[in-house]
Amino acid sequence: MNSPELTAATLEPFFDELARLSGEAIMPYFRMQPAVADKTPGQVFDPVTEADRAAERVIRAHIKKHFPDHAIRGEEFGRENTGAEYEWVIDPIDGTRGFICGLPTWGTLVGLQRNGIAVFGMMNQPHVGECFTGDGKISRVISTSRTQILKTRILKTRDCLSLGDAFIATTSPRIIKGEESLAYDRLEARCKLARYGGDCYAYAALAAGQIDLVVETGLQAYDIAALIPIIEGAGGIVTTWTGGSPAEGGSILAAGNKALHSQAMDVLSGY
Amino acid sequence: MNSPELTAATLEPFFDELARLSGEAIMPYFRMQPAVADKTPGQVFDPVTEADRAAERVIRAHIKKHFPDHAIRGEEFGRENTGAEYEWVIDPIDGTRGFICGLPTWGTLVGLQRNGIAVFGMMNQPHVGECFTGDGKISRVISTSRTQILKTRILKTRDCLSLGDAFIATTSPRIIKGEESLAYDRLEARCKLARYGGDCYAYAALAAGQIDLVVETGLQAYDIAALIPIIEGAGGIVTTWTGGSPAEGGSILAAGNKALHSQAMDVLSGY
Repeated sequence: MNSPELTAATLEPFFDELARLSGEAIMPYFRMQPAVADKTPGQVFDPVTEADRAAERVIRAHIKKHFPDHAIRGEEFGRENTGAEYEWVIDPIDGTRGFICGLPTWGTLVGLQRNGIAVFGMMNQPHVGECFTGDGKISRVISTSRTQILKTRILKTRDCLSLGDAFIATTSPRIIKGEESLAYDRLEARCKLARYGGDCYAYAALAAGQIDLVVETGLQAYDIAALIPIIEGAGGIVTTWTGGSPAEGGSILAAGNKALHSQAMDVLSGY
Repeated sequence: MNSPELTAATLEPFFDELARLSGEAIMPYFRMQPAVADKTPGQVFDPVTEADRAAERVIRAHIKKHFPDHAIRGEEFGRENTGAEYEWVIDPIDGTRGFICGLPTWGTLVGLQRNGIAVFGMMNQPHVGECFTGDGKISRVISTSRTQILKTRILKTRDCLSLGDAFIATTSPRIIKGEESLAYDRLEARCKLARYGGDCYAYAALAAGQIDLVVETGLQAYDIAALIPIIEGAGGIVTTWTGGSPAEGGSILAAGNKALHSQAMDVLSGY
Protein backbone atom coordinates (compact mmCIF):
# COMPACT_ATOMS: atom_id res chain seq x y z
CA MET A 1 0.00 0.00 0.00
CA ASN A 2 1.37 3.40 -0.93
CA SER A 3 1.26 6.25 1.53
CA PRO A 4 -0.69 9.34 0.45
CA GLU A 5 1.54 12.01 -1.13
CA LEU A 6 3.07 14.27 1.46
CA THR A 7 2.88 17.95 0.58
CA ALA A 8 4.91 20.87 1.91
CA ALA A 9 1.83 22.00 3.87
CA THR A 10 1.86 18.71 5.80
CA LEU A 11 5.62 18.42 6.03
CA GLU A 12 6.57 21.89 7.23
CA PRO A 13 4.87 21.67 10.65
CA PHE A 14 6.13 18.10 11.02
CA PHE A 15 9.73 19.19 10.42
CA ASP A 16 9.26 22.16 12.78
CA GLU A 17 8.34 19.64 15.46
CA LEU A 18 11.36 17.44 14.63
CA ALA A 19 13.57 20.54 14.98
CA ARG A 20 12.08 21.41 18.34
CA LEU A 21 12.28 17.86 19.74
CA SER A 22 15.85 17.20 18.55
CA GLY A 23 17.03 20.63 19.76
CA GLU A 24 15.66 19.90 23.23
CA ALA A 25 17.41 16.52 23.21
CA ILE A 26 20.79 17.90 22.11
CA MET A 27 21.18 21.24 23.87
CA PRO A 28 21.74 19.89 27.42
CA TYR A 29 24.93 18.25 26.06
CA PHE A 30 26.26 21.24 24.07
CA ARG A 31 29.27 22.88 25.78
CA MET A 32 29.46 20.13 28.35
CA GLN A 33 33.17 19.59 28.63
CA PRO A 34 34.14 16.18 27.22
CA ALA A 35 35.91 14.06 29.78
CA VAL A 36 39.66 14.05 29.29
CA ALA A 37 40.46 10.58 28.05
CA ASP A 38 43.13 9.56 30.54
CA LYS A 39 41.07 10.34 33.63
CA THR A 40 38.62 7.46 33.48
CA PRO A 41 40.03 4.83 31.14
CA GLY A 42 37.32 2.76 29.49
CA GLN A 43 34.63 4.94 31.07
CA VAL A 44 34.90 8.14 29.06
CA PHE A 45 31.69 10.12 28.96
CA ASP A 46 31.31 11.43 25.45
CA PRO A 47 28.72 14.22 25.22
CA VAL A 48 28.52 14.11 21.43
CA THR A 49 27.66 10.41 21.37
CA GLU A 50 25.07 10.88 24.10
CA ALA A 51 23.56 13.88 22.31
CA ASP A 52 23.62 12.08 18.94
CA ARG A 53 21.75 9.09 20.34
CA ALA A 54 19.26 11.13 22.33
CA ALA A 55 18.37 13.21 19.25
CA GLU A 56 18.10 10.28 16.85
CA ARG A 57 15.87 8.46 19.34
CA VAL A 58 13.32 11.31 19.58
CA ILE A 59 13.40 11.88 15.81
CA ARG A 60 12.80 8.18 15.08
CA ALA A 61 10.02 7.95 17.66
CA HIS A 62 8.21 10.97 16.20
CA ILE A 63 8.48 9.63 12.64
CA LYS A 64 7.31 6.13 13.64
CA LYS A 65 4.34 7.57 15.50
CA HIS A 66 3.11 9.47 12.43
CA PHE A 67 4.46 7.36 9.56
CA PRO A 68 4.81 3.78 10.81
CA ASP A 69 5.19 2.34 7.29
CA HIS A 70 8.09 4.63 6.28
CA ALA A 71 11.72 3.54 6.16
CA ILE A 72 14.29 5.21 8.43
CA ARG A 73 18.06 5.44 7.99
CA GLY A 74 20.09 7.09 10.72
CA GLU A 75 23.74 7.53 11.62
CA GLU A 76 23.40 6.00 15.07
CA PHE A 77 20.76 3.26 14.80
CA GLY A 78 20.98 2.06 11.19
CA ARG A 79 18.10 1.21 8.84
CA GLU A 80 14.58 -0.08 9.30
CA ASN A 81 11.61 -0.77 6.96
CA THR A 82 14.09 -0.78 4.05
CA GLY A 83 12.33 -0.75 0.67
CA ALA A 84 9.39 1.47 1.68
CA GLU A 85 8.31 4.22 -0.72
CA TYR A 86 9.37 6.95 1.71
CA GLU A 87 12.66 6.92 3.58
CA TRP A 88 13.81 9.35 6.29
CA VAL A 89 17.56 9.97 6.44
CA ILE A 90 18.92 11.31 9.72
CA ASP A 91 22.22 12.76 10.95
CA PRO A 92 21.38 13.96 14.47
CA ILE A 93 24.60 16.02 14.76
CA ASP A 94 26.44 16.82 11.55
CA GLY A 95 29.71 18.54 12.43
CA THR A 96 30.59 16.65 15.58
CA ARG A 97 34.05 18.27 15.76
CA GLY A 98 32.45 21.71 15.86
CA PHE A 99 30.02 20.41 18.48
CA ILE A 100 32.67 19.04 20.84
CA CYS A 101 34.76 22.20 20.33
CA GLY A 102 31.77 24.29 21.52
CA LEU A 103 31.44 26.13 18.18
CA PRO A 104 28.01 26.88 16.69
CA THR A 105 28.71 25.27 13.29
CA TRP A 106 27.00 21.90 13.64
CA GLY A 107 23.44 21.02 12.68
CA THR A 108 20.72 18.40 12.83
CA LEU A 109 19.97 16.96 9.38
CA VAL A 110 16.73 15.20 8.47
CA GLY A 111 15.88 14.40 4.84
CA LEU A 112 12.87 12.68 3.33
CA GLN A 113 13.17 10.72 0.10
CA ARG A 114 10.43 9.22 -2.05
CA ASN A 115 11.63 6.29 -4.12
CA GLY A 116 15.18 7.52 -3.62
CA ILE A 117 14.46 11.13 -4.69
CA ALA A 118 14.86 13.89 -2.09
CA VAL A 119 11.51 15.58 -1.43
CA PHE A 120 12.15 17.59 1.72
CA GLY A 121 15.12 18.42 3.91
CA MET A 122 15.99 20.28 7.09
CA MET A 123 19.18 21.63 8.68
CA ASN A 124 18.42 22.85 12.20
CA GLN A 125 20.83 24.75 14.48
CA PRO A 126 19.24 25.00 17.93
CA HIS A 127 22.01 27.03 19.62
CA VAL A 128 21.88 29.79 17.02
CA GLY A 129 18.14 29.34 16.55
CA GLU A 130 17.86 28.91 12.82
CA CYS A 131 16.29 26.20 10.72
CA PHE A 132 16.93 25.83 6.97
CA THR A 133 14.39 23.80 4.97
CA GLY A 134 13.67 23.06 1.31
CA ASP A 135 11.57 20.83 -0.93
CA GLY A 136 13.61 21.16 -4.12
CA LYS A 137 11.38 23.97 -5.43
CA ILE A 138 11.60 26.54 -2.66
CA SER A 139 13.92 26.88 0.34
CA ARG A 140 13.75 29.07 3.41
CA VAL A 141 15.41 29.81 6.71
CA ILE A 142 13.34 30.39 9.81
CA SER A 143 15.21 32.33 12.44
CA THR A 144 14.30 32.49 16.09
CA SER A 145 17.48 34.18 17.20
CA ARG A 146 17.76 36.44 20.19
CA THR A 147 15.26 39.08 19.09
CA GLN A 148 12.70 36.30 19.50
CA ILE A 149 10.99 37.67 16.39
CA LEU A 150 10.27 34.78 14.07
CA LYS A 151 11.69 35.72 10.70
CA THR A 152 11.33 33.69 7.53
CA ARG A 153 13.54 34.36 4.54
CA ILE A 154 13.40 32.73 1.12
CA LEU A 155 16.82 31.38 0.13
CA LYS A 156 18.39 32.13 -3.25
CA THR A 157 21.86 31.13 -4.41
CA ARG A 158 24.20 33.82 -5.73
CA ASP A 159 24.62 34.57 -9.41
CA CYS A 160 28.42 34.10 -9.37
CA LEU A 161 29.45 32.88 -12.80
CA SER A 162 33.23 32.81 -12.56
CA LEU A 163 35.61 30.76 -10.35
CA GLY A 164 37.74 33.88 -9.87
CA ASP A 165 34.85 35.51 -7.98
CA ALA A 166 33.78 32.40 -6.10
CA PHE A 167 33.88 31.67 -2.36
CA ILE A 168 34.65 27.98 -1.77
CA ALA A 169 34.11 26.01 1.44
CA THR A 170 35.28 22.63 2.67
CA THR A 171 35.28 21.31 6.22
CA SER A 172 39.02 20.59 6.23
CA PRO A 173 41.40 20.39 3.26
CA ARG A 174 43.42 17.89 5.31
CA ILE A 175 40.74 15.19 5.33
CA ILE A 176 40.73 15.08 1.52
CA LYS A 177 43.21 12.40 0.47
CA GLY A 178 45.40 11.39 -2.50
CA GLU A 179 44.41 12.45 -6.03
CA GLU A 180 41.27 14.11 -4.68
CA SER A 181 43.41 16.35 -2.49
CA LEU A 182 45.33 17.59 -5.55
CA ALA A 183 42.06 18.17 -7.40
CA TYR A 184 40.55 20.11 -4.51
CA ASP A 185 43.71 22.23 -4.13
CA ARG A 186 43.65 23.02 -7.87
CA LEU A 187 40.06 24.25 -7.53
CA GLU A 188 40.67 26.22 -4.32
CA ALA A 189 43.61 28.00 -5.98
CA ARG A 190 41.25 29.24 -8.73
CA CYS A 191 38.70 30.68 -6.26
CA LYS A 192 38.63 34.10 -4.62
CA LEU A 193 38.28 32.95 -1.01
CA ALA A 194 38.33 29.63 0.87
CA ARG A 195 36.65 28.93 4.18
CA TYR A 196 37.04 25.85 6.39
CA GLY A 197 35.13 24.38 9.31
CA GLY A 198 31.61 24.83 7.95
CA ASP A 199 30.22 21.28 7.80
CA CYS A 200 26.48 21.38 7.00
CA TYR A 201 26.40 25.16 7.58
CA ALA A 202 28.45 25.68 4.44
CA TYR A 203 25.69 24.12 2.29
CA ALA A 204 23.06 26.23 4.06
CA ALA A 205 25.20 29.34 3.39
CA LEU A 206 25.45 28.30 -0.27
CA ALA A 207 21.64 28.12 -0.42
CA ALA A 208 21.54 31.58 1.22
CA GLY A 209 23.77 33.02 -1.53
CA GLN A 210 26.83 33.59 0.69
CA ILE A 211 29.09 30.77 -0.54
CA ASP A 212 29.38 29.66 -4.18
CA LEU A 213 30.97 26.21 -3.96
CA VAL A 214 31.09 23.47 -1.32
CA VAL A 215 33.44 20.58 -2.06
CA GLU A 216 33.85 17.54 0.19
CA THR A 217 34.81 13.88 0.08
CA GLY A 218 33.92 10.76 2.01
CA LEU A 219 30.36 11.81 2.82
CA GLN A 220 27.70 9.34 3.89
CA ALA A 221 24.12 9.45 2.60
CA TYR A 222 23.00 10.98 5.92
CA ASP A 223 25.56 13.80 5.57
CA ILE A 224 23.96 15.11 2.37
CA ALA A 225 20.40 13.75 1.89
CA ALA A 226 18.74 16.53 3.90
CA LEU A 227 20.76 19.24 2.16
CA ILE A 228 19.93 18.29 -1.45
CA PRO A 229 16.38 19.75 -1.54
CA ILE A 230 17.57 22.86 0.35
CA ILE A 231 20.34 23.52 -2.20
CA GLU A 232 18.10 22.73 -5.21
CA GLY A 233 15.15 24.72 -3.87
CA ALA A 234 17.41 27.77 -3.63
CA GLY A 235 18.52 27.42 -7.27
CA GLY A 236 21.75 25.51 -6.67
CA ILE A 237 23.04 22.22 -7.98
CA VAL A 238 24.64 19.35 -6.10
CA THR A 239 26.17 16.19 -7.56
CA THR A 240 29.13 13.92 -7.05
CA TRP A 241 32.43 15.20 -8.45
CA THR A 242 31.64 13.35 -11.70
CA GLY A 243 28.11 14.71 -12.02
CA GLY A 244 26.23 11.73 -10.61
CA SER A 245 23.46 11.64 -8.00
CA PRO A 246 24.64 12.90 -4.60
CA ALA A 247 21.99 10.92 -2.70
CA GLU A 248 24.38 8.21 -1.47
CA GLY A 249 27.16 10.64 -0.51
CA GLY A 250 30.77 10.13 -1.59
CA SER A 251 32.71 13.04 -3.14
CA ILE A 252 30.29 15.95 -3.34
CA LEU A 253 30.30 19.21 -5.33
CA ALA A 254 27.61 21.81 -4.61
CA ALA A 255 27.42 25.06 -6.59
CA GLY A 256 25.15 28.08 -6.66
CA ASN A 257 24.40 27.69 -10.37
CA LYS A 258 24.95 25.37 -13.31
CA ALA A 259 27.64 27.47 -15.04
CA LEU A 260 29.86 27.55 -11.94
CA HIS A 261 29.18 23.88 -11.23
CA SER A 262 30.37 22.99 -14.71
CA GLN A 263 33.59 25.05 -14.38
CA ALA A 264 34.32 23.49 -10.97
CA MET A 265 33.70 19.96 -12.26
CA ASP A 266 36.14 20.61 -15.12
CA VAL A 267 38.88 21.74 -12.72
CA LEU A 268 38.26 18.80 -10.35
CA SER A 269 38.51 16.32 -13.22
CA GLY A 270 41.77 17.84 -14.44
CA TYR A 271 40.71 19.79 -17.54
CA MET B 1 45.27 63.89 35.08
CA ASN B 2 44.64 60.20 35.68
CA SER B 3 41.19 58.75 35.21
CA PRO B 4 39.61 57.10 38.27
CA GLU B 5 40.15 53.33 38.38
CA LEU B 6 37.52 51.49 36.42
CA THR B 7 36.07 48.48 38.22
CA ALA B 8 34.20 45.49 36.82
CA ALA B 9 31.00 46.91 38.33
CA THR B 10 31.36 50.03 36.17
CA LEU B 11 32.71 48.26 33.12
CA GLU B 12 30.23 45.40 32.78
CA PRO B 13 27.17 47.54 31.99
CA PHE B 14 29.31 49.74 29.74
CA PHE B 15 30.46 46.72 27.71
CA ASP B 16 26.87 45.40 27.59
CA GLU B 17 25.92 48.66 25.96
CA LEU B 18 28.85 48.45 23.50
CA ALA B 19 27.66 44.93 22.59
CA ARG B 20 24.11 46.12 21.99
CA LEU B 21 25.10 49.16 19.94
CA SER B 22 27.64 47.35 17.77
CA GLY B 23 25.27 44.42 17.22
CA GLU B 24 22.57 46.78 16.00
CA ALA B 25 25.07 48.44 13.65
CA ILE B 26 26.35 45.17 12.18
CA MET B 27 23.32 42.91 11.88
CA PRO B 28 21.60 44.71 8.97
CA TYR B 29 24.69 43.82 6.87
CA PHE B 30 25.02 40.17 7.94
CA ARG B 31 23.90 37.75 5.18
CA MET B 32 23.56 40.56 2.69
CA GLN B 33 24.99 39.01 -0.42
CA PRO B 34 28.29 40.70 -1.36
CA ALA B 35 28.19 42.16 -4.86
CA VAL B 36 29.93 39.94 -7.37
CA ALA B 37 33.11 41.80 -8.25
CA ASP B 38 32.85 41.87 -12.04
CA LYS B 39 29.37 43.38 -12.15
CA THR B 40 30.14 46.92 -11.07
CA PRO B 41 33.86 47.50 -11.52
CA GLY B 42 35.22 50.10 -9.12
CA GLN B 43 31.85 50.35 -7.39
CA VAL B 44 31.69 47.11 -5.46
CA PHE B 45 29.45 47.27 -2.39
CA ASP B 46 31.22 45.38 0.35
CA PRO B 47 28.90 44.58 3.28
CA VAL B 48 31.74 43.63 5.62
CA THR B 49 33.52 46.96 5.15
CA GLU B 50 30.28 48.86 5.65
CA ALA B 51 29.43 46.82 8.76
CA ASP B 52 32.99 47.16 10.12
CA ARG B 53 32.90 50.94 9.81
CA ALA B 54 29.37 51.33 11.15
CA ALA B 55 30.22 49.28 14.23
CA GLU B 56 33.55 50.98 14.95
CA ARG B 57 31.86 54.37 14.60
CA VAL B 58 29.21 53.63 17.26
CA ILE B 59 31.77 52.00 19.58
CA ARG B 60 34.14 55.00 19.31
CA ALA B 61 31.31 57.49 19.81
CA HIS B 62 30.09 55.71 22.94
CA ILE B 63 33.61 55.52 24.43
CA LYS B 64 34.36 59.18 23.64
CA LYS B 65 31.09 60.27 25.22
CA HIS B 66 31.92 58.56 28.51
CA PHE B 67 35.73 58.57 28.54
CA PRO B 68 36.89 61.53 26.44
CA ASP B 69 40.48 61.36 27.76
CA HIS B 70 41.02 57.68 26.89
CA ALA B 71 43.01 56.49 23.89
CA ILE B 72 41.31 54.46 21.16
CA ARG B 73 42.88 52.07 18.66
CA GLY B 74 40.64 50.49 16.04
CA GLU B 75 41.03 48.40 12.91
CA GLU B 76 39.15 50.83 10.67
CA PHE B 77 39.91 54.32 11.98
CA GLY B 78 43.38 54.03 13.56
CA ARG B 79 44.57 55.56 16.84
CA GLU B 80 43.66 58.66 18.79
CA ASN B 81 44.74 60.13 22.18
CA THR B 82 47.82 57.90 22.01
CA GLY B 83 49.72 57.81 25.31
CA ALA B 84 46.70 58.02 27.62
CA GLU B 85 46.60 55.76 30.67
CA TYR B 86 43.63 53.78 29.32
CA GLU B 87 43.43 52.54 25.72
CA TRP B 88 40.47 50.86 24.04
CA VAL B 89 41.36 48.34 21.33
CA ILE B 90 38.63 47.56 18.80
CA ASP B 91 38.11 44.97 16.05
CA PRO B 92 34.50 45.58 15.00
CA ILE B 93 34.29 42.28 13.05
CA ASP B 94 36.94 39.67 13.77
CA GLY B 95 36.53 36.80 11.31
CA THR B 96 35.50 38.74 8.24
CA ARG B 97 35.72 35.62 6.04
CA GLY B 98 33.17 33.88 8.23
CA PHE B 99 31.05 37.03 8.13
CA ILE B 100 30.98 37.34 4.34
CA CYS B 101 30.37 33.59 4.04
CA GLY B 102 27.25 33.97 6.21
CA LEU B 103 28.63 31.71 8.97
CA PRO B 104 28.10 32.55 12.66
CA THR B 105 31.80 32.38 13.62
CA TRP B 106 32.78 36.06 13.67
CA GLY B 107 32.68 38.42 16.65
CA THR B 108 33.05 42.00 17.81
CA LEU B 109 36.17 42.48 19.93
CA VAL B 110 36.66 45.35 22.37
CA GLY B 111 39.52 45.34 24.87
CA LEU B 112 40.52 47.87 27.49
CA GLN B 113 44.16 48.26 28.56
CA ARG B 114 45.61 50.29 31.41
CA ASN B 115 49.22 51.27 30.81
CA GLY B 116 49.44 48.50 28.23
CA ILE B 117 48.00 45.78 30.50
CA ALA B 118 44.67 44.19 29.54
CA VAL B 119 42.02 44.93 32.19
CA PHE B 120 38.77 43.97 30.48
CA GLY B 121 37.72 42.35 27.22
CA MET B 122 34.62 41.38 25.28
CA MET B 123 33.83 39.06 22.37
CA ASN B 124 30.24 39.61 21.28
CA GLN B 125 28.35 37.51 18.69
CA PRO B 126 25.05 39.23 17.96
CA HIS B 127 23.65 36.66 15.51
CA VAL B 128 24.03 33.78 17.98
CA GLY B 129 23.28 36.07 20.91
CA GLU B 130 26.22 35.42 23.18
CA CYS B 131 28.73 37.75 24.76
CA PHE B 132 31.99 36.53 26.35
CA THR B 133 33.70 38.90 28.81
CA GLY B 134 36.60 38.76 31.25
CA ASP B 135 38.76 40.97 33.45
CA GLY B 136 41.72 38.62 33.90
CA LYS B 137 40.35 37.27 37.20
CA ILE B 138 36.92 36.01 36.18
CA SER B 139 35.32 35.36 32.80
CA ARG B 140 31.74 34.70 31.80
CA VAL B 141 29.44 34.20 28.85
CA ILE B 142 26.05 35.85 28.78
CA SER B 143 23.67 34.10 26.43
CA THR B 144 20.51 35.60 25.03
CA SER B 145 19.90 32.86 22.52
CA ARG B 146 16.51 31.87 21.25
CA THR B 147 14.98 30.83 24.56
CA GLN B 148 15.24 34.54 25.44
CA ILE B 149 16.22 33.48 28.93
CA LEU B 150 19.30 35.42 29.94
CA LYS B 151 21.84 32.88 31.12
CA THR B 152 25.23 33.70 32.61
CA ARG B 153 27.89 31.04 32.91
CA ILE B 154 31.33 31.35 34.50
CA LEU B 155 34.05 30.20 32.11
CA LYS B 156 36.75 27.73 33.13
CA THR B 157 39.42 26.22 30.90
CA ARG B 158 39.77 22.45 30.73
CA ASP B 159 42.25 20.52 32.79
CA CYS B 160 43.85 18.81 29.79
CA LEU B 161 47.50 18.13 30.64
CA SER B 162 48.72 16.18 27.63
CA LEU B 163 49.03 17.12 23.94
CA GLY B 164 47.72 13.67 23.01
CA ASP B 165 44.36 14.57 24.57
CA ALA B 166 44.27 18.15 23.33
CA PHE B 167 41.89 19.81 20.85
CA ILE B 168 43.76 22.41 18.79
CA ALA B 169 42.24 25.21 16.70
CA THR B 170 43.60 27.58 14.09
CA THR B 171 41.64 29.67 11.60
CA SER B 172 43.39 28.18 8.56
CA PRO B 173 46.59 26.10 8.46
CA ARG B 174 47.17 27.55 4.98
CA ILE B 175 47.66 31.13 6.13
CA ILE B 176 50.60 30.06 8.34
CA LYS B 177 53.76 30.46 6.25
CA GLY B 178 57.33 29.13 6.05
CA GLU B 179 59.04 27.77 9.18
CA GLU B 180 55.99 28.63 11.26
CA SER B 181 53.86 26.38 9.06
CA LEU B 182 56.18 23.42 9.78
CA ALA B 183 56.07 24.22 13.51
CA TYR B 184 52.28 24.43 13.53
CA ASP B 185 51.97 21.15 11.59
CA ARG B 186 54.32 19.45 14.06
CA LEU B 187 52.10 20.57 16.94
CA GLU B 188 48.82 19.69 15.20
CA ALA B 189 50.15 16.18 14.52
CA ARG B 190 50.67 15.68 18.28
CA CYS B 191 47.11 16.71 19.18
CA LYS B 192 43.96 14.60 19.33
CA LEU B 193 41.76 16.79 17.12
CA ALA B 194 42.18 19.92 14.99
CA ARG B 195 39.47 22.39 14.09
CA TYR B 196 39.65 25.23 11.56
CA GLY B 197 37.57 28.32 10.84
CA GLY B 198 37.08 29.51 14.41
CA ASP B 199 38.67 32.99 14.47
CA CYS B 200 37.87 34.71 17.79
CA TYR B 201 35.31 32.01 18.65
CA ALA B 202 38.14 29.52 19.11
CA TYR B 203 39.62 31.60 21.97
CA ALA B 204 36.17 31.95 23.55
CA ALA B 205 35.73 28.16 23.28
CA LEU B 206 39.15 27.72 24.93
CA ALA B 207 37.98 29.90 27.81
CA ALA B 208 34.82 27.78 27.99
CA GLY B 209 36.89 24.59 28.35
CA GLN B 210 36.01 23.13 24.94
CA ILE B 211 39.30 23.70 23.10
CA ASP B 212 42.76 23.30 24.67
CA LEU B 213 45.07 25.16 22.29
CA VAL B 214 44.63 28.02 19.82
CA VAL B 215 47.62 28.74 17.60
CA GLU B 216 47.76 31.55 15.05
CA THR B 217 50.21 33.83 13.27
CA GLY B 218 50.15 37.33 11.85
CA LEU B 219 47.67 38.73 14.39
CA GLN B 220 47.29 42.46 14.99
CA ALA B 221 46.91 43.95 18.47
CA TYR B 222 43.16 44.40 17.86
CA ASP B 223 42.78 40.68 16.99
CA ILE B 224 43.90 39.57 20.46
CA ALA B 225 43.73 42.45 23.00
CA ALA B 226 40.08 41.82 23.92
CA LEU B 227 40.63 38.08 24.25
CA ILE B 228 43.58 38.16 26.70
CA PRO B 229 41.54 38.97 29.86
CA ILE B 230 38.83 36.47 28.82
CA ILE B 231 41.40 33.66 28.45
CA GLU B 232 43.29 34.58 31.63
CA GLY B 233 40.10 35.09 33.65
CA ALA B 234 39.07 31.53 32.76
CA GLY B 235 42.40 30.09 33.93
CA GLY B 236 44.17 29.97 30.59
CA ILE B 237 47.44 31.42 29.39
CA VAL B 238 48.17 33.33 26.19
CA THR B 239 51.57 34.48 24.94
CA THR B 240 53.52 34.77 21.73
CA TRP B 241 55.06 31.53 20.46
CA THR B 242 58.24 32.42 22.38
CA GLY B 243 56.46 33.22 25.63
CA GLY B 244 56.33 37.00 25.30
CA SER B 245 53.44 39.40 25.84
CA PRO B 246 50.60 38.80 23.36
CA ALA B 247 49.32 42.38 23.62
CA GLU B 248 50.74 43.53 20.28
CA GLY B 249 49.68 40.39 18.38
CA GLY B 250 52.08 38.46 16.14
CA SER B 251 52.34 34.66 16.49
CA ILE B 252 50.02 33.68 19.29
CA LEU B 253 49.71 30.55 21.45
CA ALA B 254 46.78 30.23 23.85
CA ALA B 255 46.41 27.22 26.15
CA GLY B 256 43.96 26.11 28.79
CA ASN B 257 46.69 25.71 31.42
CA LYS B 258 50.38 26.30 32.02
CA ALA B 259 51.51 22.67 31.65
CA LEU B 260 49.93 22.30 28.21
CA HIS B 261 51.17 25.75 27.17
CA SER B 262 54.71 24.73 28.03
CA GLN B 263 54.48 21.46 26.06
CA ALA B 264 53.05 23.28 23.05
CA MET B 265 55.75 25.97 23.18
CA ASP B 266 58.42 23.26 23.22
CA VAL B 267 56.98 21.60 20.11
CA LEU B 268 56.60 24.94 18.29
CA SER B 269 60.20 25.84 19.00
CA GLY B 270 61.48 22.48 17.77
CA TYR B 271 62.35 20.60 20.97
